[in-house]
Amino acid sequence: MGLLSEGLTQLLIPLAALVGLAFALLQWFLVSRVKVSGSYGEGNGYKDKLIGEAEEGVDSLEVTVKVAEIQNAISIGATSFLFTQYRYLSIFVGVFSAIIFLFLGSVKGFSTKSEPCTYNTGNTCKPALANAFFTTIAFLLGALTSVLSGFFGMKIATYANARTTLEARRGVGKAFITAFRSGAVMGFLLAANGLLVLYITINLFKLYYGDDWEGLYESITGYGLGGSSMALFGRVGGGIYTKAADVGADLVGKVERNIPEDDPRNPAVIADNVGDNVGDIAGMGSDLFGSYAESSCAALFVASISSFGISHDYTAMSYPLIISSMGIVVCLLTTLFATDLFEIKKVSEIEPSLKRQLLISTVLMTAGIAAVTFVALPSEFTLFSFGTNKAVKNWYLFFCVAIGLWAGLVIGYTTEYYTSNAYSPVQDVADSCRTGAATNVIFGLALGYKSVIIPVFAIAFAIYVSFSLAAMYGIAVAALGMLSTISTGLAIDAYGPISDNAGGIAEMAGMSHEIRERTDALDAAGNTTAAIGKGFAIGSAALVSLALFGAYVSRAGIETVDVLTPKVFIGLLVGAMLPYWFSAMTMKSVGSAALKMVEEVRRQFNTIPGLMEGTAKPDYATCVKISTDASLKEMIPPGALVMLTPLIAGTFFGVETLAGILAGSLVSGVQIAISASNTGGAWDNAKKYIEAGASEHAKSLGPKGSDPHKAAVIGDTIGDPLKDTSAFTQHSYQAHGS
Amino acid sequence: MGLLSEGLTQLLIPLAALVGLAFALLQWFLVSRVKVSGSYGEGNGYKDKLIGEAEEGVDSLEVTVKVAEIQNAISIGATSFLFTQYRYLSIFVGVFSAIIFLFLGSVKGFSTKSEPCTYNTGNTCKPALANAFFTTIAFLLGALTSVLSGFFGMKIATYANARTTLEARRGVGKAFITAFRSGAVMGFLLAANGLLVLYITINLFKLYYGDDWEGLYESITGYGLGGSSMALFGRVGGGIYTKAADVGADLVGKVERNIPEDDPRNPAVIADNVGDNVGDIAGMGSDLFGSYAESSCAALFVASISSFGISHDYTAMSYPLIISSMGIVVCLLTTLFATDLFEIKKVSEIEPSLKRQLLISTVLMTAGIAAVTFVALPSEFTLFSFGTNKAVKNWYLFFCVAIGLWAGLVIGYTTEYYTSNAYSPVQDVADSCRTGAATNVIFGLALGYKSVIIPVFAIAFAIYVSFSLAAMYGIAVAALGMLSTISTGLAIDAYGPISDNAGGIAEMAGMSHEIRERTDALDAAGNTTAAIGKGFAIGSAALVSLALFGAYVSRAGIETVDVLTPKVFIGLLVGAMLPYWFSAMTMKSVGSAALKMVEEVRRQFNTIPGLMEGTAKPDYATCVKISTDASLKEMIPPGALVMLTPLIAGTFFGVETLAGILAGSLVSGVQIAISASNTGGAWDNAKKYIEAGASEHAKSLGPKGSDPHKAAVIGDTIGDPLKDTSAFTQHSYQAHGS
Repeated sequence: MGLLSEGLTQLLIPLAALVGLAFALLQWFLVSRVKVSGSYGEGNGYKDKLIGEAEEGVDSLEVTVKVAEIQNAISIGATSFLFTQYRYLSIFVGVFSAIIFLFLGSVKGFSTKSEPCTYNTGNTCKPALANAFFTTIAFLLGALTSVLSGFFGMKIATYANARTTLEARRGVGKAFITAFRSGAVMGFLLAANGLLVLYITINLFKLYYGDDWEGLYESITGYGLGGSSMALFGRVGGGIYTKAADVGADLVGKVERNIPEDDPRNPAVIADNVGDNVGDIAGMGSDLFGSYAESSCAALFVASISSFGISHDYTAMSYPLIISSMGIVVCLLTTLFATDLFEIKKVSEIEPSLKRQLLISTVLMTAGIAAVTFVALPSEFTLFSFGTNKAVKNWYLFFCVAIGLWAGLVIGYTTEYYTSNAYSPVQDVADSCRTGAATNVIFGLALGYKSVIIPVFAIAFAIYVSFSLAAMYGIAVAALGMLSTISTGLAIDAYGPISDNAGGIAEMAGMSHEIRERTDALDAAGNTTAAIGKGFAIGSAALVSLALFGAYVSRAGIETVDVLTPKVFIGLLVGAMLPYWFSAMTMKSVGSAALKMVEEVRRQFNTIPGLMEGTAKPDYATCVKISTDASLKEMIPPGALVMLTPLIAGTFFGVETLAGILAGSLVSGVQIAISASNTGGAWDNAKKYIEAGASEHAKSLGPKGSDPHKAAVIGDTIGDPLKDTSAFTQHSYQAHGS
Repeated sequence: MGLLSEGLTQLLIPLAALVGLAFALLQWFLVSRVKVSGSYGEGNGYKDKLIGEAEEGVDSLEVTVKVAEIQNAISIGATSFLFTQYRYLSIFVGVFSAIIFLFLGSVKGFSTKSEPCTYNTGNTCKPALANAFFTTIAFLLGALTSVLSGFFGMKIATYANARTTLEARRGVGKAFITAFRSGAVMGFLLAANGLLVLYITINLFKLYYGDDWEGLYESITGYGLGGSSMALFGRVGGGIYTKAADVGADLVGKVERNIPEDDPRNPAVIADNVGDNVGDIAGMGSDLFGSYAESSCAALFVASISSFGISHDYTAMSYPLIISSMGIVVCLLTTLFATDLFEIKKVSEIEPSLKRQLLISTVLMTAGIAAVTFVALPSEFTLFSFGTNKAVKNWYLFFCVAIGLWAGLVIGYTTEYYTSNAYSPVQDVADSCRTGAATNVIFGLALGYKSVIIPVFAIAFAIYVSFSLAAMYGIAVAALGMLSTISTGLAIDAYGPISDNAGGIAEMAGMSHEIRERTDALDAAGNTTAAIGKGFAIGSAALVSLALFGAYVSRAGIETVDVLTPKVFIGLLVGAMLPYWFSAMTMKSVGSAALKMVEEVRRQFNTIPGLMEGTAKPDYATCVKISTDASLKEMIPPGALVMLTPLIAGTFFGVETLAGILAGSLVSGVQIAISASNTGGAWDNAKKYIEAGASEHAKSLGPKGSDPHKAAVIGDTIGDPLKDTSAFTQHSYQAHGS
């Protein structure tokens, strides 16, 4: 037994979760102090105002009111889309939970009799029907928590976007803090909420299960499945929504009409801003929650069938939850570095500050992991590994979690290097715009391909070390290690779309050029952090799906998955093809939806008199409707494919082919996901680099409207569906892993 | 024993090869009847002339002389590049054959003593040193034959391009026949030569080896290795050459200066045309020869260690060679359908005629396979399968070869569907140019991703069936089946670059618009056939590398390659990443070389007075030199990586990780290769579709110089390095397979 008593564990986990929730609410309160309409400009904040006198008139009360109006429109659009989406998803959840219940229940013919345990030999376990029932409940709770994580994230993001815009008038530092705090609200809400619900569920289920931990933690896996299946639809639906609006708005606005991004005359502009909130916030929230829940559940399940479970060591069993608890505390400290201990004064300090967040949280968390590992785990124990038991020391697990954590940092830093315009890769891409869009695309694609190398080595290294040390449990806790600083990760990730929206609102409200420059700088850093967030999501999903894959293979009773047998090999080959198939589907979906959007935007420009001159208002609602309808319709086929492939392959070709498909789609999907995400991020920032014109080199490529800039805009537009593809592909294999 | 006696086999194989050679020479003679300078226009051909009277003046003797001049420049450029390349390669071949000799020789300490055979227990086999020596000789012969295949192909192509241009004056049908016959010369020379050299080598080696067939056929595998290692460099070097020139020429010519493709004022135009011959002809020739040699050797080796080898059944042993012999006869008949039995009268008949070639050769070959299978093989025998012996009936092998053949047809037809502008996929891509380059790129990438689905299923099906029926031997002969109609495949493939050159020459010689339209139509069909050729190359390479992979695994004594072990899994993951790494390298190489080319072309336009007006001649030679230097320099790093990865992985991580890497790079490389090749082909033909304006829809997108056309040109330019990437990636895994 470790040093930590069961009672203390039972106290500390919910305490950490509640501290996380309290911190999130505190941040929300601090953000809410920025008033959106009327009262701004009064009080002591005003003397910090940095903008020139000449702009006084522009940033008047009238502007503030306009900002409030736009915020309202975005918030209403996002809320209404999510509610519509949830209506659809509730049907899916209903059907799927019925399937889970019937399938698990039918395995033993809906038996209500207790039976001997599989692993904890000699004891009796609860009946199969009870497991089916509790798994279904856990599934529903996971799905609900996933949806709530996304929804609350969207709420705070649409609450904070206008506030960030208004704070931008007082300087880039103030705006940064507002955006970052709002991101932190989302990060902490999600992590704390996820932990708390899981903790409570386990304890409630325990009332029934008692000493049957095999059954208890098997039914808890439903929680992970619920989380990740919502993530799939949240990400795909949101992704199609946002990219259709984005591409559609850009194609007519920037390319045809030559009006700036987020110009209020563009009818698709509200849909575009709504999209950021439903795709990059709500979708991303559900997404990371899914990975987090899956890795916790996978680790819990593996532990339950080996020594911790059999010797009923509750504290050691709860190791995954204790890591997450420590993660909340570490991220809380880390956040203070960005919001209180250092102040951003210049645009150039934004990216280093965000990067520092990653480093600080990783260093602190390493110490945190060491602490929890030594107090929570016995010094030696055995772990289940494909039918055999493996002897493990507690410091092995420290290395497993830590290597996951540091692999995450490596992925984050690599992503930053390849997508930030502070380094040569993006600058080279920007430079290639001199010779036109074709070279821009070639260099951008090559950049994405290249950016795969280091993350893949990092993931491979993490897998190798953690598996060697602690078999599949090692991989599950490595994934958890990568996600242990999820609050910070999500904070810097959500910061991106919030800043993007802030910029959009500044443009639409007709705020001064200087304000727009500040929000653009925030946004450029946000593109990088969004790519980093995707990098984390992809990396952790790879580890999680491998852990799940291992769990699946153990359960299915397969001893080896031999590449040399044709059944497995063709599984690998077809599996490696699936991410391409899915990408083709989603890119085509975005393409078609964008074309519809283009037609509507053109129609409005052509038929609404005075629109181009700014004297008439566009019909934003129709564009919102087009994106909504397209995304809801188009999310079904790829979603169905992801769900059905394992079913069909398993039924017709057997478990070996299915195992091959899972492995194939995992190893191929990682590459396509990372490369697409980074290519998209790099194009976006190459464009921003030219627009900002911050160096001699950048100036020689600009200004806006120059030929290189036009070429850069084309790259940026292509990047939109690619980023979406990436998010999706990652899910295609993650869901397969489930 | 089968029905065919050993003596008859010994007679028929060389006879088929000689018939193939004779047929190639006959086709060459027929092509040579078109005279390039002076004498044209005299004699009976003249009355067939289809062009209008108004053009008489243009197509005068003066033009013919100019055509001869241009042809000469291209031919000299191509020959000099290949000689330079071969100088570099000879160093590589020298070093590599020394390594082979020392490595194989050192295994048993350069022993000169005979020892007991490994498989044919009870008998004595030749000493290890002899095997090392003969393997090295076979390696050298394979390398030489590969180089000769490429070189002769280039010779006939540069001989035929101008003749095709001149024949285009007499109508599209005549031009088609000239280009197709020249392609056939290459196809038959390669197939017959490859077969003959292999046959003679086996018989000469047999003089020494006698009854030791294990040693004999093991040393023969050097032939395959020699062929495929030359293929790697031929394809990569040629690929970088042609794409650098192509992209460079297009970027300044088409995009900046708004002059047509192949305009003689463009200084890079000769380099571009040389590139087609060294990349798409010589490179492709070496390439397909490599696959052909590898699959023959893999099949021979597997057979030698099972019943055919042990019972010394020479005819059954020679089954792979007999299939290739039958292939030559079948392709000969097939060619007659294109050149003599049907005549092309209209542009719209070109593609169907080429497509018919694929179908006819496949149908005839199916009968041919049935015939040779039943006469050459005993009705029942055993085959080696990972340490055990598998009982096999002769009709099993019929199905193995036939399924490879038909899988090739499926790949060919799918490729045609996705890359020909006669069908909706390319037309949709063309249509997406309406909204600009960004949608063109998005739709093109989505098309490529989608085009992977059917070929992958076809390959998976072929693997599954052929392995189930006859283990690794089944896969090797399935690959051979796909390549059995290689003469026809190469004829329609080589036809593409020849037509492309013909169009270039027509433009450069200032021939009339009508002639250019005809050569453009030939060229559009050529883009499709080039993509089909790549499809065959990729598909057969996948099968061949799997067969080699199996052979490697058997030799290394591995019983299973278990995906569930972390060593194998990380191998898979890193292997799946390698094609991305290689693609990044080659795309960057093409990009940098193209930028150098752009600078040079711009410099010439800016500093040579009268160049744009056509009164001064550009300096073609400098551009040729830039392409040559770039390709020779840039082919080394990716080539080294491909060669070194297995070495490093095997040495540091062991055979299991290496096996994972091979499998991972194979399954991931197939996808990226097919999608990149088809995306590139589709963009090229979308552009040609708009330019040709053959339908109302196409007219609404054109004409040349319209905004949609400009967007299409951007896609076409991006496609160039992608096609190259595809060819390369395929090699990255094929060479790994070796």
